[in-house]
Amino acid sequence: MMELALRRGFYFPSCEIYDGAPAGFWDYGPLGTALKNRFVEAWRRYVVRYDGMVELDGSVIMAKDVFVASGHLESFADPITRCTRCGSVFRADRLLQERTGRIVPERLPDSEIYAMILEEGLKCPSCGGQLSEVTRFNMMFKVSVGGEGTEAYLRPETCQSLFVDFLRVYKIGWSKFPLPLCQFGKSFRNEISPRQGLLRLREFYQAEVEVLFDPEEELDERRWSRLRGQVLRLSQDAESVTEITAEEAWREGLVPLKIEAYYLALIQKFYETIGIERSKIRLRRLGEDEKPFYARESWDVEVQTSLGWLELVACNYRGDYDLSGHMRVSGKDLTAFNKGRKFVPHVFELSMGVDRSLYVLLEHKLVREGRRRVLKLPPYLAPVQVAVLPLVDRDGLPEKAMEVYEMLRIDFDAVYEAGDTIGKRYHMLDEIGVPYCVTVDHQTLQDETVTVRDRDTTRQERVPISGLKAWLSKALAYPEIR
Amino acid sequence: MMELALRRGFYFPSCEIYDGAPAGFWDYGPLGTALKNRFVEAWRRYVVRYDGMVELDGSVIMAKDVFVASGHLESFADPITRCTRCGSVFRADRLLQERTGRIVPERLPDSEIYAMILEEGLKCPSCGGQLSEVTRFNMMFKVSVGGEGTEAYLRPETCQSLFVDFLRVYKIGWSKFPLPLCQFGKSFRNEISPRQGLLRLREFYQAEVEVLFDPEEELDERRWSRLRGQVLRLSQDAESVTEITAEEAWREGLVPLKIEAYYLALIQKFYETIGIERSKIRLRRLGEDEKPFYARESWDVEVQTSLGWLELVACNYRGDYDLSGHMRVSGKDLTAFNKGRKFVPHVFELSMGVDRSLYVLLEHKLVREGRRRVLKLPPYLAPVQVAVLPLVDRDGLPEKAMEVYEMLRIDFDAVYEAGDTIGKRYHMLDEIGVPYCVTVDHQTLQDETVTVRDRDTTRQERVPISGLKAWLSKALAYPEIR
Repeated sequence: MMELALRRGFYFPSCEIYDGAPAGFWDYGPLGTALKNRFVEAWRRYVVRYDGMVELDGSVIMAKDVFVASGHLESFADPITRCTRCGSVFRADRLLQERTGRIVPERLPDSEIYAMILEEGLKCPSCGGQLSEVTRFNMMFKVSVGGEGTEAYLRPETCQSLFVDFLRVYKIGWSKFPLPLCQFGKSFRNEISPRQGLLRLREFYQAEVEVLFDPEEELDERRWSRLRGQVLRLSQDAESVTEITAEEAWREGLVPLKIEAYYLALIQKFYETIGIERSKIRLRRLGEDEKPFYARESWDVEVQTSLGWLELVACNYRGDYDLSGHMRVSGKDLTAFNKGRKFVPHVFELSMGVDRSLYVLLEHKLVREGRRRVLKLPPYLAPVQVAVLPLVDRDGLPEKAMEVYEMLRIDFDAVYEAGDTIGKRYHMLDEIGVPYCVTVDHQTLQDETVTVRDRDTTRQERVPISGLKAWLSKALAYPEIR
Repeated sequence: MMELALRRGFYFPSCEIYDGAPAGFWDYGPLGTALKNRFVEAWRRYVVRYDGMVELDGSVIMAKDVFVASGHLESFADPITRCTRCGSVFRADRLLQERTGRIVPERLPDSEIYAMILEEGLKCPSCGGQLSEVTRFNMMFKVSVGGEGTEAYLRPETCQSLFVDFLRVYKIGWSKFPLPLCQFGKSFRNEISPRQGLLRLREFYQAEVEVLFDPEEELDERRWSRLRGQVLRLSQDAESVTEITAEEAWREGLVPLKIEAYYLALIQKFYETIGIERSKIRLRRLGEDEKPFYARESWDVEVQTSLGWLELVACNYRGDYDLSGHMRVSGKDLTAFNKGRKFVPHVFELSMGVDRSLYVLLEHKLVREGRRRVLKLPPYLAPVQVAVLPLVDRDGLPEKAMEVYEMLRIDFDAVYEAGDTIGKRYHMLDEIGVPYCVTVDHQTLQDETVTVRDRDTTRQERVPISGLKAWLSKALAYPEIR
């Protein structure tokens, strides 16, 4: 995957021409950018519009008070240890796990982590020096704003914009509950040692949904009827998976609230729709020592990869933690009304890592078929939608192919490929997942038809040029779901 | 405009529930987010795909060396003065202009600006105290990365990602010139006193195009033939405007290079296509003392607004400034080959301010017609594409309207509006620019047809429900351009 990503330019390290550039920052190349844009459009379709969510877009630099209220200033910190000889800094919990296999629970006090380091006789992996006591390193990036140097932070999660904007959105008329707010955008975390490509980044894309709801009201029947029958793959202990409908999961108490069951069903269905096999997905309920500090109940949407099960979406029931916090620190009234009752909205969130989702999609959809390597993305997610090829580079075919390309170029993400044997060109286009190749041959000059080759079946169909745009529009359309 | 923006939630100040939140940061609300997303899609269509550009997406935190090479660390600074009594900080040039009307050219030395302050007897506008000597305040936001605290910066312009990514993109196969790279994303500038809503932000969206080209080769005929006939509205002196085709402008030397004339034509055509009247647009050539430090020639795309002519796009011929700088500081070879010649690519850029473009679109398209206020955005840019309304809130019409809404909700940005007289609801939907209102009435229950009301003409048409999706798809389609 990594080899393909770099060689074909899906993504690569940011500022890579500078040797000292900090790690954990990646840029999307031409194919990666297109894939990311299409993924976000699919999310807007199958998550946002499917449910009738309200999308916002907030600034990434936010006031310090936001993170006083959210708890991030105090609690969003990693345990670190420094080498007392060479000065290198390490995440204490990860170092322990990598070197000794011991798992360090997220909430273990620093003194106990340090005790484990001493117990294991752990030394600096760079120089063998002694490691310092464990301290906390806040993972937020701080910035200084204006001539006066006002302290502010890059948001560590997009959802904080949604919480602080709730009052405005509610007042201007979005006042029916449940009120699902959502946002696609960048978040930032100053990780100590980011290494794993797109999987642990210091700057990353999230697509977050924060469903604000009245805890005394059950989910509406209109939503529930859409997904009550969706099969959930629930995992309570990381060992086994139970396949059970959303309705049964709720009735049996495996998922306490109907609203949780509905949104878990929604997000699992999203990944199934865009092409991840159901059997490779699980909704794992987190144990008490794994949950983030603001969560009452947590599920991770995990997908099976070559690196094991990987978390793509963190689903957290955050209770009234967020709005109560912002109400306390801002002094503003963030209560809402529903059926005559006043209440502080509760929150259930679907916090999706977009970069990791793209990584997983590429890994799942890149298949080997004989000597072909084919990236079998659904056509509507393909970075390049259509390639136009002259059969040979003579007899006026390149000129005719250019005419066809010109006709398609504004409506579709199209490329014009010449210069090699047709077989090699198909091969190269298969690898980047181009779903349809339009080939201009000698017959084209006579009857104004072209062949369209299907990436997945390799079958070819003769299509008149006059009908090509309509043919492609239909073939590239989103599948209908209920 | 501002009143509408806040009242209907197009945009509003970020973190507004916190009184001390820094200025210059804005969030897009539900309508603003949708408008911004559609604007970017239109840019992708009428600029990026129209020309065959290559879109990238880079991280916003970038290595310090990038800005050593770009000159931003040294030169991207505003002249400031501090009150020696109360400590307030002001932009010296703006303060002079606001208080005395004197224009301070961008490149005037600090000592001369201070001399002007003394000459005019300017005091602190807050407390009347004495103002300090003028110094420089770098406008980049600095961040500290990792346990070691590596210095890095939030990019002040998206284009730096394109320059540092050029080598990778070129090597993996995008090696034909001109090579137009582009990017949509956030940039950050630590302005001293941002005040004017969406017009001067500390965090803002850019859609930038950097055309890398071989200075010894003329623009290709395929591109030139598309836009040679486009009328440019050139302004050489900010007083008069000449209407002249791209071809004539180039032949007469008003625009030195064909490639400049072509891309100026492309960007002017973009604004015309999305609905800005040609007569309200001008391409103003900047004088020597107005140009940014990296530019050989500069044009601003300006649009007439209630605040005067407003810059929406900075078009700069940057020569080989950028790649030569990065080559020198990184030590990497950023030369390219074209027809056997080795060269450092030159750059012509179209640097678009997205937030300002949205502001101008809203201002231009919000019109008063009798007692109606109508936001006449082109249908394909409308934040809400269709509203479904029951004629009255009884007789089963709300239920039927809900059925129609359910049918439309995944394919379109649809809302379901009940609760007031139909006239008032139309009025409210006109103001946010909903192009089509679907009304469910008593006849609907008998013959499964609805009326579709056109926002601009207020005319109604009877459409069968079975054909409604196709009808709307056609009405909301992008107009074809050549």
